[in-house]
Amino acid sequence: MKIGKTIWETEKRVNQSMQVMKEGKFLAFLKESLKGISQIIYVENIITGLLILLAITVSSFSLGIIALLSAMIGTLVAKIGGADKTLISKGLMSYNSVLSGLVLQTCLTGPNVWIVALVGAAITAIFTATLMYFLGNVGIPILTLPFILLTWFVLLSTYKLDSIKLNESLSPQSVANWELHVEGEINLFQAIFNGIGQIFFLTETIPGLLLFLAVFWASRKMGIYAVIGNVVACVTALALGGEHTLIMLGLYSYNAILTILAVSVVYNTKENRYAPITGVVAACMTVPLMASVSIWLLPFGLPALTMPFVMSTWLILGARKVLPNV
Amino acid sequence: MKIGKTIWETEKRVNQSMQVMKEGKFLAFLKESLKGISQIIYVENIITGLLILLAITVSSFSLGIIALLSAMIGTLVAKIGGADKTLISKGLMSYNSVLSGLVLQTCLTGPNVWIVALVGAAITAIFTATLMYFLGNVGIPILTLPFILLTWFVLLSTYKLDSIKLNESLSPQSVANWELHVEGEINLFQAIFNGIGQIFFLTETIPGLLLFLAVFWASRKMGIYAVIGNVVACVTALALGGEHTLIMLGLYSYNAILTILAVSVVYNTKENRYAPITGVVAACMTVPLMASVSIWLLPFGLPALTMPFVMSTWLILGARKVLPNV
Amino acid sequence: MKIGKTIWETEKRVNQSMQVMKEGKFLAFLKESLKGISQIIYVENIITGLLILLAITVSSFSLGIIALLSAMIGTLVAKIGGADKTLISKGLMSYNSVLSGLVLQTCLTGPNVWIVALVGAAITAIFTATLMYFLGNVGIPILTLPFILLTWFVLLSTYKLDSIKLNESLSPQSVANWELHVEGEINLFQAIFNGIGQIFFLTETIPGLLLFLAVFWASRKMGIYAVIGNVVACVTALALGGEHTLIMLGLYSYNAILTILAVSVVYNTKENRYAPITGVVAACMTVPLMASVSIWLLPFGLPALTMPFVMSTWLILGARKVLPNV
Repeated sequence: MKIGKTIWETEKRVNQSMQVMKEGKFLAFLKESLKGISQIIYVENIITGLLILLAITVSSFSLGIIALLSAMIGTLVAKIGGADKTLISKGLMSYNSVLSGLVLQTCLTGPNVWIVALVGAAITAIFTATLMYFLGNVGIPILTLPFILLTWFVLLSTYKLDSIKLNESLSPQSVANWELHVEGEINLFQAIFNGIGQIFFLTETIPGLLLFLAVFWASRKMGIYAVIGNVVACVTALALGGEHTLIMLGLYSYNAILTILAVSVVYNTKENRYAPITGVVAACMTVPLMASVSIWLLPFGLPALTMPFVMSTWLILGARKVLPNV
Repeated sequence: MKIGKTIWETEKRVNQSMQVMKEGKFLAFLKESLKGISQIIYVENIITGLLILLAITVSSFSLGIIALLSAMIGTLVAKIGGADKTLISKGLMSYNSVLSGLVLQTCLTGPNVWIVALVGAAITAIFTATLMYFLGNVGIPILTLPFILLTWFVLLSTYKLDSIKLNESLSPQSVANWELHVEGEINLFQAIFNGIGQIFFLTETIPGLLLFLAVFWASRKMGIYAVIGNVVACVTALALGGEHTLIMLGLYSYNAILTILAVSVVYNTKENRYAPITGVVAACMTVPLMASVSIWLLPFGLPALTMPFVMSTWLILGARKVLPNV
Repeated sequence: MKIGKTIWETEKRVNQSMQVMKEGKFLAFLKESLKGISQIIYVENIITGLLILLAITVSSFSLGIIALLSAMIGTLVAKIGGADKTLISKGLMSYNSVLSGLVLQTCLTGPNVWIVALVGAAITAIFTATLMYFLGNVGIPILTLPFILLTWFVLLSTYKLDSIKLNESLSPQSVANWELHVEGEINLFQAIFNGIGQIFFLTETIPGLLLFLAVFWASRKMGIYAVIGNVVACVTALALGGEHTLIMLGLYSYNAILTILAVSVVYNTKENRYAPITGVVAACMTVPLMASVSIWLLPFGLPALTMPFVMSTWLILGARKVLPNV
């Protein structure tokens, strides 16, 4: 059997990696991991990564640690797996791992949560590779899909596995019993800080402020678009009669921020002459998509995560191949 | 910010388009829109488009207007987006928009329905482009998938958005509470007219008659196949023990008509020597597929639309690449 | 109409096939069908096919007959459809048909079950061709996906069709009402025999023993890996707190056997230096995947079948294109 031999080889390889790190290359590894954190908002920027990490840590110390460890694990799995070095150093192999680590730590309870979150981050890195290959064939970016699907599968499995427990805030409900309660106070200012925070599962003003800082640091243009997407989505959600409590928590706007950035700043070319307007339209579309995906997941008690963002962005990126002006 | 500038540009472009139309090209645009209506049954034929529009208008005046406006909006979005002119002029960019407009107007209630239906038609045109690109990669036609997915997402979102309401005929139900009641009278003649009508969400004899006329006008061969698919599906549904009320409403046969036309008339080549038989088999398969899809959607109260047709047709079109005789 | 003519042609062709068989080629056809049975565990080996058929027949005589007939029908459909002769003779066009025939016979009740099982086997052969084409485009094997999807759709349709009835052991249940009961005795030895049996929907010791024999006959290496995957999955399921009754029935390990064989023996290349370890990891992953898929299907009362195996295997096979060491 080759298992024994390959275990030994892996150990040797890991030991070598460790040694290399000690010899001063640990800093490079840390930089790659921080870029993994900043790639969540599409940039390769260590300061942005640090600011995001700070925002998370301010909100919860243990979440901050999980975020950094998840980024490191994602990077490590990609290295051991033999991924392209440029992809790794840009943080593109690990940003999904960061999100998985964060959300699993947030949505699960019990003494084993840390382990599940970090194992989840490791598998997310493998899944990132899988989807890169499949979606690379059609020339479309994976966005945050690996994190979304992995999280849904892990959360679903908790119903049948005694060692992991879902947070009580998540509970399955039949659509037949669903009742809509829209009423509630609205404070648009607070909603906007929560909107950017929700990308990282945070809902406070100071982390929100730090995250805006992180985006503006990376690019003033991105910062302005982030604000526009955020505001436009809140207004659309109000106009369509979305639940005010959800709007206040930023749950109707975080997808819009990621979407407008993808459509109007990151993945557009000169050919797409209406890209700024298309971005606003795509940001508005995340609102009904958020409503749809939430209802679709209601019987399983799962959160929509950034699926509305992925759907709205793919809709536009795919359409551009046939409608180049968009 | 480029948004202001691009809004201005779009306005200018729309104004130009308007002017061009006034100058006599409006007729060309209308023709393209009518072809969009006729493409629902795979033909590029203005008279067929007019007959279908007449059938819809006879059944409901407002539905007729929505159908024409949706076709025009779909065509317009494709033009502004810069789609290939041949695709637009054949009506291939807008037939899904027609269906979306019709079904949203039918399934929703409230004062905003018109707006939702027309915005839905516009987004369907973008989604048509997206799926054309994705499915073009595997060499398979999009059929009515854009309309199906868009409609499901819009209907799902109504549960969480106060400004749009689902028609009362649609209600979510747990599969665990589901009971089958097969009994009911059967009048095959009526069922057959309803079957072709259901493609356009209609259930009366005169619209059904007009629709048969529209198909036979386009091609005698298609007309005969439409009748065969229709009858075969009704008989299969009776044999398998489908609910008689649904068979009577044509809900077990509209998918079969679209399927047999696609498999035996539209997408077959000389190599597919058994195409006529395969078409009949595919038409029969839409019956259990209709049952499956309906149960799958039961917890969400969504209609199956033409999903059984899409599935059955793709099954055969894909298989032909490996089983050329089929 | 060409229908009459093509029916006549088909008849002629079938008659010719029949004649050829009588003339001594029936044995060749039988061999291809037996290879179809052995391909379920990735090998092209008549003796293995016979041993599997024996294991099934020992457990239930009628299941044995269905297995052989399904293999023959799958092969026949592929021949009539004009599939590549090498694919047919290797049994690659019919192994999914065998599984469909078996599971439909197992999950349905009533006098029409035989017909449904055999028609299901025939359509599975067409569906096998469809998915071969679609997934061939991305260079990924179809595994048992045709059988899984076909079975789910047939089982779903029974709720709405009076002529087919689901076995009482399958019943839809709301996730909101779900309660986890882990307790129960554990006998790892029995669990292991059930684990390999469950690949063919069997749960007894002697069929399990015969199946191990079939695998070891094909290749000693595969046999050892099958045992490892089996044990590793049972231990993982115990550690994660899976229901003991399900572990005992082999329901947490059959996916692991298929997965470790695919990842570590069948689809790996020299480049994948950690393939043995990756196989073990992939086998472990089938455990939470089994839990997730089961919960996802709970509202519809559907069995997970080999979906966890397909997911886990695709995850690794796709990832290898980006992470070659894996």
